[in-house]
Amino acid sequence: MGTVGKALDILDLFTHRQPSLGLSQLARLSGLNKTTCHRLLTEMESRGLVEQAGPAREYRLGPAVLRLAALRESSVPTRDAAMPVLRRLAEATGETAHVSHLVAGRLQTLAFCYAAQSGMKVMMEDADFLPFDATASGAAVLANLPRGEGFRLAASARDPDALHARIEDCRRNGWAETHSTMQKDVQGLAVPLFDAGGICCGAVAVAAAAPRMTPALHATIVAELIRAGTEITALRGGDLPDPIATLWRSAAGKDPK
Amino acid sequence: MGTVGKALDILDLFTHRQPSLGLSQLARLSGLNKTTCHRLLTEMESRGLVEQAGPAREYRLGPAVLRLAALRESSVPTRDAAMPVLRRLAEATGETAHVSHLVAGRLQTLAFCYAAQSGMKVMMEDADFLPFDATASGAAVLANLPRGEGFRLAASARDPDALHARIEDCRRNGWAETHSTMQKDVQGLAVPLFDAGGICCGAVAVAAAAPRMTPALHATIVAELIRAGTEITALRGGDLPDPIATLWRSAAGKDPK
Repeated sequence: MGTVGKALDILDLFTHRQPSLGLSQLARLSGLNKTTCHRLLTEMESRGLVEQAGPAREYRLGPAVLRLAALRESSVPTRDAAMPVLRRLAEATGETAHVSHLVAGRLQTLAFCYAAQSGMKVMMEDADFLPFDATASGAAVLANLPRGEGFRLAASARDPDALHARIEDCRRNGWAETHSTMQKDVQGLAVPLFDAGGICCGAVAVAAAAPRMTPALHATIVAELIRAGTEITALRGGDLPDPIATLWRSAAGKDPK
Repeated sequence: MGTVGKALDILDLFTHRQPSLGLSQLARLSGLNKTTCHRLLTEMESRGLVEQAGPAREYRLGPAVLRLAALRESSVPTRDAAMPVLRRLAEATGETAHVSHLVAGRLQTLAFCYAAQSGMKVMMEDADFLPFDATASGAAVLANLPRGEGFRLAASARDPDALHARIEDCRRNGWAETHSTMQKDVQGLAVPLFDAGGICCGAVAVAAAAPRMTPALHATIVAELIRAGTEITALRGGDLPDPIATLWRSAAGKDPK
Protein backbone atom coordinates (compact mmCIF):
# COMPACT_ATOMS: atom_id res chain seq x y z
CA MET A 1 0.00 0.00 0.00
CA GLY A 2 1.29 3.45 -0.91
CA THR A 3 1.88 6.39 1.40
CA VAL A 4 -1.18 8.25 0.15
CA GLY A 5 -3.41 5.25 0.82
CA LYS A 6 -2.05 5.00 4.37
CA ALA A 7 -2.75 8.69 4.96
CA LEU A 8 -6.28 8.46 3.58
CA ASP A 9 -7.01 5.36 5.68
CA ILE A 10 -6.29 7.51 8.75
CA LEU A 11 -9.19 9.75 7.73
CA ASP A 12 -11.56 6.76 7.92
CA LEU A 13 -10.69 6.28 11.61
CA PHE A 14 -12.65 9.44 12.46
CA THR A 15 -16.31 8.57 13.07
CA HIS A 16 -19.36 10.13 14.68
CA ARG A 17 -18.54 8.12 17.78
CA GLN A 18 -14.91 9.28 17.78
CA PRO A 19 -14.65 12.58 15.89
CA SER A 20 -11.38 13.49 17.70
CA LEU A 21 -8.48 11.12 18.23
CA GLY A 22 -5.01 11.50 19.76
CA LEU A 23 -1.82 10.53 17.98
CA SER A 24 -1.37 7.35 20.06
CA GLN A 25 -4.91 6.21 19.31
CA LEU A 26 -4.51 6.94 15.60
CA ALA A 27 -1.21 5.06 15.47
CA ARG A 28 -2.74 2.07 17.25
CA LEU A 29 -5.92 2.01 15.14
CA SER A 30 -4.03 2.43 11.87
CA GLY A 31 -1.32 -0.08 12.70
CA LEU A 32 1.32 2.53 11.78
CA ASN A 33 4.20 3.47 14.04
CA LYS A 34 3.83 6.81 15.76
CA THR A 35 6.54 8.55 13.73
CA THR A 36 4.99 7.60 10.39
CA CYS A 37 1.50 8.39 11.62
CA HIS A 38 2.63 11.82 12.84
CA ARG A 39 4.35 12.60 9.54
CA LEU A 40 1.23 11.71 7.52
CA LEU A 41 -0.97 13.75 9.86
CA THR A 42 1.36 16.75 9.57
CA GLU A 43 1.18 16.60 5.78
CA MET A 44 -2.60 16.39 5.89
CA GLU A 45 -2.74 19.21 8.46
CA SER A 46 -0.70 21.48 6.17
CA ARG A 47 -3.51 21.15 3.59
CA GLY A 48 -6.35 21.61 6.12
CA LEU A 49 -7.61 18.03 5.82
CA VAL A 50 -7.09 17.46 9.56
CA GLU A 51 -6.47 19.90 12.40
CA GLN A 52 -5.53 19.79 16.06
CA ALA A 53 -7.91 21.26 18.60
CA GLY A 54 -8.77 21.30 22.25
CA PRO A 55 -6.53 21.23 25.30
CA ALA A 56 -5.21 17.74 24.43
CA ARG A 57 -4.40 18.85 20.84
CA GLU A 58 -6.30 15.84 19.49
CA TYR A 59 -6.75 15.50 15.74
CA ARG A 60 -10.06 15.91 13.97
CA LEU A 61 -11.14 16.41 10.35
CA GLY A 62 -10.22 19.86 9.05
CA PRO A 63 -12.08 22.57 7.17
CA ALA A 64 -10.66 21.65 3.73
CA VAL A 65 -13.13 18.75 3.45
CA LEU A 66 -16.00 21.25 3.28
CA ARG A 67 -14.82 22.87 0.04
CA LEU A 68 -14.26 19.44 -1.51
CA ALA A 69 -17.74 18.26 -0.53
CA ALA A 70 -19.41 21.47 -1.74
CA LEU A 71 -17.66 21.10 -5.09
CA ARG A 72 -18.57 17.41 -5.36
CA GLU A 73 -22.21 18.23 -4.53
CA SER A 74 -22.34 20.94 -7.18
CA SER A 75 -21.06 18.60 -9.90
CA VAL A 76 -22.80 15.40 -8.68
CA PRO A 77 -25.71 16.35 -6.39
CA THR A 78 -26.07 13.49 -3.93
CA ARG A 79 -26.36 14.37 -0.27
CA ASP A 80 -28.20 17.67 -0.55
CA ALA A 81 -30.45 16.23 -3.25
CA ALA A 82 -31.36 13.22 -1.10
CA MET A 83 -32.19 15.20 2.06
CA PRO A 84 -35.76 16.28 1.16
CA VAL A 85 -36.57 12.70 0.10
CA LEU A 86 -35.16 11.37 3.39
CA ARG A 87 -37.17 13.89 5.38
CA ARG A 88 -40.40 12.80 3.71
CA LEU A 89 -39.50 9.12 4.17
CA ALA A 90 -38.89 9.65 7.90
CA GLU A 91 -42.12 11.61 8.28
CA ALA A 92 -44.27 9.16 6.31
CA THR A 93 -43.00 6.15 8.26
CA GLY A 94 -42.34 7.71 11.68
CA GLU A 95 -38.94 5.93 11.68
CA THR A 96 -35.30 6.78 11.01
CA ALA A 97 -34.42 7.09 7.30
CA HIS A 98 -30.90 6.93 5.90
CA VAL A 99 -29.04 6.75 2.63
CA SER A 100 -25.70 5.07 2.04
CA HIS A 101 -23.26 5.08 -0.81
CA LEU A 102 -20.83 2.44 -2.03
CA VAL A 103 -17.35 4.01 -1.76
CA ALA A 104 -14.22 1.99 -2.46
CA GLY A 105 -15.90 -1.31 -1.55
CA ARG A 106 -17.54 -0.06 1.64
CA LEU A 107 -21.00 1.23 2.39
CA GLN A 108 -20.74 4.75 3.84
CA THR A 109 -23.66 6.48 5.52
CA LEU A 110 -24.21 9.66 3.51
CA ALA A 111 -27.14 11.22 5.35
CA PHE A 112 -29.84 10.33 7.81
CA CYS A 113 -33.03 11.85 9.10
CA TYR A 114 -35.02 11.19 12.25
CA ALA A 115 -38.80 11.28 12.43
CA ALA A 116 -39.86 14.30 14.46
CA GLN A 117 -42.95 12.56 15.82
CA SER A 118 -41.24 9.60 17.52
CA GLY A 119 -39.77 9.96 21.00
CA MET A 120 -38.08 6.56 20.60
CA LYS A 121 -35.96 6.42 17.48
CA VAL A 122 -33.16 4.33 16.03
CA MET A 123 -29.98 6.43 16.27
CA MET A 124 -27.58 6.58 13.34
CA GLU A 125 -24.60 8.49 14.77
CA ASP A 126 -22.60 5.32 15.25
CA ALA A 127 -23.17 3.93 11.78
CA ASP A 128 -20.53 5.68 9.66
CA PHE A 129 -19.94 2.46 7.74
CA LEU A 130 -22.66 -0.18 7.31
CA PRO A 131 -21.51 -3.83 7.45
CA PHE A 132 -22.82 -5.73 4.41
CA ASP A 133 -23.73 -8.78 6.46
CA ALA A 134 -25.68 -7.04 9.21
CA THR A 135 -27.78 -4.42 7.45
CA ALA A 136 -30.70 -4.35 5.03
CA SER A 137 -28.77 -1.74 3.04
CA GLY A 138 -25.85 -4.16 2.70
CA ALA A 139 -28.10 -6.96 1.44
CA ALA A 140 -29.89 -4.59 -0.98
CA VAL A 141 -26.55 -3.52 -2.47
CA LEU A 142 -25.06 -7.03 -2.66
CA ALA A 143 -28.22 -8.34 -4.35
CA ASN A 144 -27.83 -5.77 -7.12
CA LEU A 145 -24.10 -5.69 -7.76
CA PRO A 146 -22.54 -7.70 -10.56
CA ARG A 147 -22.22 -11.25 -9.11
CA GLY A 148 -18.42 -11.24 -8.91
CA GLU A 149 -18.24 -7.99 -6.99
CA GLY A 150 -21.10 -9.06 -4.70
CA PHE A 151 -19.34 -12.35 -3.89
CA ARG A 152 -16.12 -10.50 -3.11
CA LEU A 153 -17.78 -8.04 -0.72
CA ALA A 154 -19.83 -10.83 0.92
CA ALA A 155 -16.76 -13.00 1.48
CA SER A 156 -16.12 -11.91 5.08
CA ALA A 157 -19.70 -12.43 6.28
CA ARG A 158 -19.94 -13.99 9.72
CA ASP A 159 -23.10 -15.93 8.79
CA PRO A 160 -22.90 -16.51 5.01
CA ASP A 161 -26.08 -18.62 4.87
CA ALA A 162 -28.22 -15.93 6.49
CA LEU A 163 -26.70 -13.30 4.22
CA HIS A 164 -27.31 -15.31 1.07
CA ALA A 165 -30.92 -15.97 2.08
CA ARG A 166 -31.36 -12.22 2.59
CA ILE A 167 -29.81 -11.50 -0.81
CA GLU A 168 -32.13 -14.02 -2.48
CA ASP A 169 -35.15 -12.45 -0.77
CA CYS A 170 -34.08 -9.06 -2.06
CA ARG A 171 -33.69 -10.36 -5.62
CA ARG A 172 -37.22 -11.79 -5.41
CA ASN A 173 -38.92 -8.81 -3.69
CA GLY A 174 -36.95 -5.76 -4.78
CA TRP A 175 -36.25 -4.78 -1.17
CA ALA A 176 -34.15 -6.24 1.67
CA GLU A 177 -34.95 -6.78 5.34
CA THR A 178 -33.07 -7.55 8.56
CA HIS A 179 -34.16 -8.20 12.14
CA SER A 180 -31.93 -7.23 15.08
CA THR A 181 -28.75 -7.95 13.13
CA MET A 182 -26.99 -4.62 13.76
CA GLN A 183 -28.85 -3.40 16.85
CA LYS A 184 -31.27 -5.32 19.07
CA ASP A 185 -34.96 -4.64 18.39
CA VAL A 186 -34.22 -2.79 15.18
CA GLN A 187 -35.86 -3.89 11.96
CA GLY A 188 -34.13 -2.65 8.81
CA LEU A 189 -35.69 -2.35 5.36
CA ALA A 190 -33.81 -1.09 2.32
CA VAL A 191 -33.95 -0.70 -1.45
CA PRO A 192 -30.98 -0.28 -3.80
CA LEU A 193 -30.03 2.95 -5.61
CA PHE A 194 -28.62 3.08 -9.13
CA ASP A 195 -26.21 5.25 -11.09
CA ALA A 196 -26.41 6.05 -14.76
CA GLY A 197 -26.06 2.76 -16.61
CA GLY A 198 -28.08 0.92 -13.93
CA ILE A 199 -25.06 0.20 -11.72
CA CYS A 200 -25.99 -0.22 -8.05
CA CYS A 201 -24.30 2.55 -6.05
CA GLY A 202 -25.94 2.48 -2.62
CA ALA A 203 -29.17 2.07 -0.74
CA VAL A 204 -31.92 4.00 0.97
CA ALA A 205 -33.25 2.44 4.15
CA VAL A 206 -35.59 2.73 7.10
CA ALA A 207 -34.37 1.59 10.54
CA ALA A 208 -37.51 0.92 12.54
CA ALA A 209 -38.09 0.15 16.20
CA ALA A 210 -39.24 -3.49 16.03
CA PRO A 211 -41.65 -3.32 19.02
CA ARG A 212 -43.97 -0.96 17.17
CA MET A 213 -43.86 -2.71 13.78
CA THR A 214 -47.25 -3.75 12.35
CA PRO A 215 -48.20 -5.28 8.98
CA ALA A 216 -49.69 -1.92 7.98
CA LEU A 217 -46.51 0.00 8.91
CA HIS A 218 -44.41 -2.62 7.11
CA ALA A 219 -46.45 -2.09 3.92
CA THR A 220 -46.12 1.70 4.29
CA ILE A 221 -42.34 1.45 4.71
CA VAL A 222 -41.95 -0.75 1.63
CA ALA A 223 -44.11 1.56 -0.49
CA GLU A 224 -42.31 4.70 0.74
CA LEU A 225 -38.88 3.10 0.23
CA ILE A 226 -39.73 2.23 -3.36
CA ARG A 227 -40.86 5.81 -3.92
CA ALA A 228 -37.68 7.17 -2.30
CA GLY A 229 -35.42 4.76 -4.22
CA THR A 230 -37.04 5.77 -7.50
CA GLU A 231 -36.68 9.47 -6.71
CA ILE A 232 -33.08 9.44 -5.44
CA THR A 233 -32.01 7.30 -8.41
CA ALA A 234 -33.67 9.83 -10.74
CA LEU A 235 -32.13 12.82 -8.89
CA ARG A 236 -28.61 11.53 -9.50
CA GLY A 237 -29.39 10.81 -13.14
CA GLY A 238 -29.46 7.04 -12.59
CA ASP A 239 -31.42 4.30 -14.32
CA LEU A 240 -33.42 1.50 -12.69
CA PRO A 241 -32.54 -1.87 -14.23
CA ASP A 242 -35.60 -3.52 -15.83
CA PRO A 243 -36.00 -6.34 -13.25
CA ILE A 244 -36.04 -3.80 -10.37
CA ALA A 245 -38.40 -1.47 -12.23
CA THR A 246 -40.80 -4.38 -12.75
CA LEU A 247 -40.60 -5.57 -9.13
CA TRP A 248 -41.13 -2.06 -7.79
CA ARG A 249 -44.12 -1.37 -10.06
CA SER A 250 -45.62 -4.63 -8.92
CA ALA A 251 -44.87 -4.05 -5.21
CA ALA A 252 -46.27 -0.54 -5.40
CA GLY A 253 -49.53 -2.04 -6.63
CA LYS A 254 -49.40 -0.11 -9.89
CA ASP A 255 -49.27 -3.40 -11.79
CA PRO A 256 -51.47 -5.74 -9.74
CA LYS A 257 -51.41 -9.42 -10.70
CA MET B 1 7.17 18.31 -0.12
CA GLY B 2 5.94 14.83 0.78
CA THR B 3 3.94 12.45 -1.37
CA VAL B 4 0.76 13.04 0.61
CA GLY B 5 1.05 16.80 0.14
CA LYS B 6 1.49 16.34 -3.60
CA ALA B 7 -1.60 14.15 -3.76
CA LEU B 8 -3.69 16.60 -1.73
CA ASP B 9 -2.54 19.52 -3.88
CA ILE B 10 -4.06 17.70 -6.86
CA LEU B 11 -7.46 17.93 -5.11
CA ASP B 12 -7.18 21.73 -5.07
CA LEU B 13 -6.96 21.78 -8.87
CA PHE B 14 -10.63 20.84 -9.08
CA THR B 15 -12.77 23.99 -9.01
CA HIS B 16 -16.32 25.03 -9.86
CA ARG B 17 -14.98 26.19 -13.22
CA GLN B 18 -13.19 22.89 -13.84
CA PRO B 19 -14.84 20.15 -11.79
CA SER B 20 -13.50 17.42 -14.14
CA LEU B 21 -9.93 17.24 -15.42
CA GLY B 22 -8.03 14.76 -17.56
CA LEU B 23 -4.75 13.17 -16.52
CA SER B 24 -2.70 15.37 -18.88
CA GLN B 25 -4.30 18.55 -17.54
CA LEU B 26 -3.77 17.44 -13.94
CA ALA B 27 -0.14 16.60 -14.61
CA ARG B 28 0.45 19.97 -16.29
CA LEU B 29 -1.36 21.99 -13.60
CA SER B 30 0.34 20.15 -10.74
CA GLY B 31 3.80 20.22 -12.28
CA LEU B 32 4.11 16.46 -11.70
CA ASN B 33 5.09 14.02 -14.39
CA LYS B 34 2.24 11.94 -15.76
CA THR B 35 3.37 8.67 -14.16
CA THR B 36 3.58 10.16 -10.67
CA CYS B 37 0.32 12.02 -11.12
CA HIS B 38 -1.43 8.84 -12.28
CA ARG B 39 -0.09 6.85 -9.33
CA LEU B 40 -1.30 9.45 -6.82
CA LEU B 41 -4.71 9.61 -8.51
CA THR B 42 -5.02 5.83 -8.45
CA GLU B 43 -4.30 5.75 -4.73
CA MET B 44 -6.87 8.47 -4.10
CA GLU B 45 -9.37 6.69 -6.36
CA SER B 46 -9.00 3.47 -4.35
CA ARG B 47 -10.27 5.42 -1.30
CA GLY B 48 -13.10 7.16 -3.17
CA LEU B 49 -11.52 10.62 -2.92
CA VAL B 50 -11.50 10.98 -6.72
CA GLU B 51 -13.28 8.99 -9.41
CA GLN B 52 -13.25 8.73 -13.18
CA ALA B 53 -16.44 9.43 -15.07
CA GLY B 54 -17.82 10.26 -18.47
CA PRO B 55 -16.76 9.06 -21.90
CA ALA B 56 -13.30 10.67 -21.59
CA ARG B 57 -12.77 9.04 -18.16
CA GLU B 58 -11.81 12.41 -16.69
CA TYR B 59 -11.17 12.66 -12.98
CA ARG B 60 -13.47 14.47 -10.55
CA LEU B 61 -13.84 14.54 -6.77
CA GLY B 62 -15.25 11.27 -5.43
CA PRO B 63 -18.04 10.41 -3.00
CA ALA B 64 -15.74 9.86 0.00
CA VAL B 65 -15.48 13.63 0.53
CA LEU B 66 -19.17 13.71 1.46
CA ARG B 67 -18.79 11.48 4.52
CA LEU B 68 -15.78 13.51 5.66
CA ALA B 69 -17.66 16.78 5.30
CA ALA B 70 -20.77 15.45 7.06
CA LEU B 71 -18.61 14.28 9.97
CA ARG B 72 -16.72 17.59 10.12
CA GLU B 73 -20.03 19.50 10.11
CA SER B 74 -21.42 17.39 12.93
CA SER B 75 -18.39 18.04 15.15
CA VAL B 76 -17.72 21.65 14.04
CA PRO B 77 -20.88 23.09 12.46
CA THR B 78 -19.69 25.63 9.90
CA ARG B 79 -21.21 25.48 6.45
CA ASP B 80 -24.71 24.27 7.35
CA ALA B 81 -24.80 26.66 10.31
CA ALA B 82 -23.82 29.63 8.14
CA MET B 83 -26.37 28.99 5.35
CA PRO B 84 -29.47 30.53 7.02
CA VAL B 85 -27.42 33.62 7.95
CA LEU B 86 -26.15 33.92 4.36
CA ARG B 87 -29.67 33.59 2.99
CA ARG B 88 -30.89 36.43 5.19
CA LEU B 89 -27.87 38.55 4.29
CA ALA B 90 -28.52 38.04 0.55
CA GLU B 91 -32.22 38.83 0.97
CA ALA B 92 -31.70 41.91 3.14
CA THR B 93 -29.14 43.42 0.76
CA GLY B 94 -30.38 42.11 -2.59
CA GLU B 95 -26.79 41.12 -3.39
CA THR B 96 -24.63 37.99 -3.39
CA ALA B 97 -23.49 36.87 0.07
CA HIS B 98 -20.61 34.50 0.73
CA VAL B 99 -18.55 33.12 3.56
CA SER B 100 -14.92 32.04 3.34
CA HIS B 101 -12.64 30.17 5.65
CA LEU B 102 -8.88 30.36 6.16
CA VAL B 103 -7.53 26.88 5.33
CA ALA B 104 -3.81 26.19 5.25
CA GLY B 105 -2.95 29.81 4.45
CA ARG B 106 -5.57 30.27 1.74
CA LEU B 107 -9.05 31.71 1.79
CA GLN B 108 -11.51 29.06 0.57
CA THR B 109 -15.09 29.90 -0.34
CA LEU B 110 -17.23 27.79 1.96
CA ALA B 111 -20.73 28.76 0.86
CA PHE B 112 -22.52 31.45 -1.09
CA CYS B 113 -26.07 32.58 -1.60
CA TYR B 114 -27.66 34.67 -4.34
CA ALA B 115 -30.43 37.17 -3.75
CA ALA B 116 -33.63 35.84 -5.31
CA GLN B 117 -34.92 39.29 -6.18
CA SER B 118 -32.02 40.46 -8.39
CA GLY B 119 -31.89 39.50 -12.04
CA MET B 120 -28.32 40.81 -12.24
CA LYS B 121 -26.10 39.23 -9.62
CA VAL B 122 -22.41 38.75 -8.91
CA MET B 123 -21.63 35.09 -9.60
CA MET B 124 -19.46 33.10 -7.21
CA GLU B 125 -18.93 29.81 -9.05
CA ASP B 126 -15.46 30.82 -10.17
CA ALA B 127 -14.23 31.92 -6.76
CA ASP B 128 -13.13 28.70 -5.08
CA PHE B 129 -10.17 30.52 -3.55
CA LEU B 130 -10.23 34.25 -2.79
CA PRO B 131 -6.98 36.17 -3.42
CA PHE B 132 -6.03 38.20 -0.34
CA ASP B 133 -5.01 41.21 -2.39
CA ALA B 134 -8.10 41.48 -4.57
CA THR B 135 -11.03 40.85 -2.24
CA ALA B 136 -12.67 42.57 0.71
CA SER B 137 -12.69 39.19 2.47
CA GLY B 138 -8.93 38.95 2.06
CA ALA B 139 -8.37 42.43 3.52
CA ALA B 140 -10.76 41.71 6.41
CA VAL B 141 -8.82 38.56 7.29
CA LEU B 142 -5.36 40.10 6.92
CA ALA B 143 -6.39 43.06 9.10
CA ASN B 144 -7.31 40.69 11.92
CA LEU B 145 -4.60 38.05 11.81
CA PRO B 146 -1.58 38.26 14.11
CA ARG B 147 0.77 40.77 12.37
CA GLY B 148 3.42 38.20 11.42
CA GLU B 149 0.97 35.86 9.74
CA GLY B 150 -0.77 38.75 8.00
CA PHE B 151 2.54 40.04 6.61
CA ARG B 152 3.44 36.56 5.35
CA LEU B 153 0.13 36.09 3.52
CA ALA B 154 0.22 39.65 2.13
CA ALA B 155 3.77 39.21 0.81
CA SER B 156 2.77 38.27 -2.74
CA ALA B 157 0.34 41.15 -3.25
CA ARG B 158 0.57 42.73 -6.70
CA ASP B 159 -0.18 46.20 -5.31
CA PRO B 160 1.09 46.20 -1.70
CA ASP B 161 0.28 49.88 -1.10
CA ALA B 162 -3.35 49.49 -2.06
CA LEU B 163 -3.62 46.34 0.05
CA HIS B 164 -2.07 47.99 3.10
CA ALA B 165 -4.38 50.99 2.78
CA ARG B 166 -7.34 48.58 2.64
CA ILE B 167 -6.07 46.72 5.71
CA GLU B 168 -5.67 50.02 7.63
CA ASP B 169 -9.21 51.04 6.66
CA CYS B 170 -10.50 47.72 7.96
CA ARG B 171 -8.65 48.12 11.27
CA ARG B 172 -10.23 51.58 11.65
CA ASN B 173 -13.80 50.67 10.52
CA GLY B 174 -14.24 47.02 11.43
CA TRP B 175 -15.11 46.13 7.84
CA ALA B 176 -13.20 46.02 4.54
CA GLU B 177 -14.10 47.23 1.08
CA THR B 178 -12.87 46.78 -2.50
CA HIS B 179 -13.90 48.27 -5.84
CA SER B 180 -13.55 46.29 -9.07
CA THR B 181 -10.41 44.52 -7.85
CA MET B 182 -11.54 40.96 -8.57
CA GLN B 183 -14.28 41.55 -11.13
CA LYS B 184 -15.15 44.77 -12.98
CA ASP B 185 -18.09 46.71 -11.52
CA VAL B 186 -18.19 44.60 -8.39
CA GLN B 187 -17.99 46.25 -4.99
CA GLY B 188 -17.00 43.93 -2.18
CA LEU B 189 -17.63 44.49 1.52
CA ALA B 190 -16.56 42.05 4.22
CA VAL B 191 -16.18 41.55 7.95
CA PRO B 192 -13.91 39.05 9.70
CA LEU B 193 -15.06 35.90 11.53
CA PHE B 194 -13.47 34.57 14.70
CA ASP B 195 -12.84 31.20 16.31
CA ALA B 196 -12.81 30.44 20.00
CA GLY B 197 -9.99 32.49 21.49
CA GLY B 198 -10.67 35.40 19.13
CA ILE B 199 -8.49 34.06 16.30
CA CYS B 200 -9.57 35.30 12.87
CA CYS B 201 -10.65 32.28 10.80
CA GLY B 202 -12.42 33.72 7.77
CA ALA B 203 -14.82 36.35 6.52
CA VAL B 204 -18.39 36.93 5.54
CA ALA B 205 -18.92 39.23 2.58
CA VAL B 206 -21.34 40.83 0.18
CA ALA B 207 -20.38 41.13 -3.49
CA ALA B 208 -22.53 43.90 -4.90
CA ALA B 209 -23.15 45.16 -8.41
CA ALA B 210 -21.46 48.58 -8.28
CA PRO B 211 -23.87 50.32 -10.73
CA ARG B 212 -26.76 50.01 -8.29
CA MET B 213 -24.83 50.95 -5.12
CA THR B 214 -26.25 53.89 -3.14
CA PRO B 215 -25.23 55.38 0.22
CA ALA B 216 -28.38 53.83 1.75
CA LEU B 217 -27.61 50.37 0.36
CA HIS B 218 -24.00 50.71 1.51
CA ALA B 219 -25.17 51.42 5.06
CA THR B 220 -27.58 48.47 4.93
CA ILE B 221 -24.81 46.13 3.74
CA VAL B 222 -22.44 47.23 6.52
CA ALA B 223 -25.13 46.82 9.19
CA GLU B 224 -26.21 43.42 7.87
CA LEU B 225 -22.60 42.23 7.56
CA ILE B 226 -21.91 43.15 11.18
CA ARG B 227 -25.02 41.25 12.23
CA ALA B 228 -24.01 38.23 10.10
CA GLY B 229 -20.41 38.31 11.35
CA THR B 230 -21.59 38.40 14.96
CA GLU B 231 -23.98 35.51 14.40
CA ILE B 232 -21.66 33.21 12.44
CA THR B 233 -18.88 33.82 14.98
CA ALA B 234 -21.31 32.90 17.77
CA LEU B 235 -22.58 29.82 15.89
CA ARG B 236 -19.10 28.35 15.68
CA GLY B 237 -18.46 29.11 19.35
CA GLY B 238 -16.07 31.96 18.55
CA ASP B 239 -15.27 35.15 20.43
CA LEU B 240 -15.12 38.68 19.01
CA PRO B 241 -11.90 40.44 20.09
CA ASP B 242 -12.65 43.56 22.12
CA PRO B 243 -11.54 46.11 19.46
CA ILE B 244 -13.84 44.52 16.87
CA ALA B 245 -16.73 44.23 19.31
CA THR B 246 -16.36 47.96 20.10
CA LEU B 247 -16.12 48.98 16.42
CA TRP B 248 -19.14 46.88 15.48
CA ARG B 249 -21.28 48.20 18.32
CA SER B 250 -20.37 51.69 17.27
CA ALA B 251 -20.94 51.07 13.54
CA ALA B 252 -24.29 49.42 14.24
CA GLY B 253 -25.33 52.61 15.99
CA LYS B 254 -25.96 50.87 19.28
CA ASP B 255 -23.28 52.97 20.91
CA PRO B 256 -23.63 56.38 19.27
CA LYS B 257 -20.90 58.89 20.03
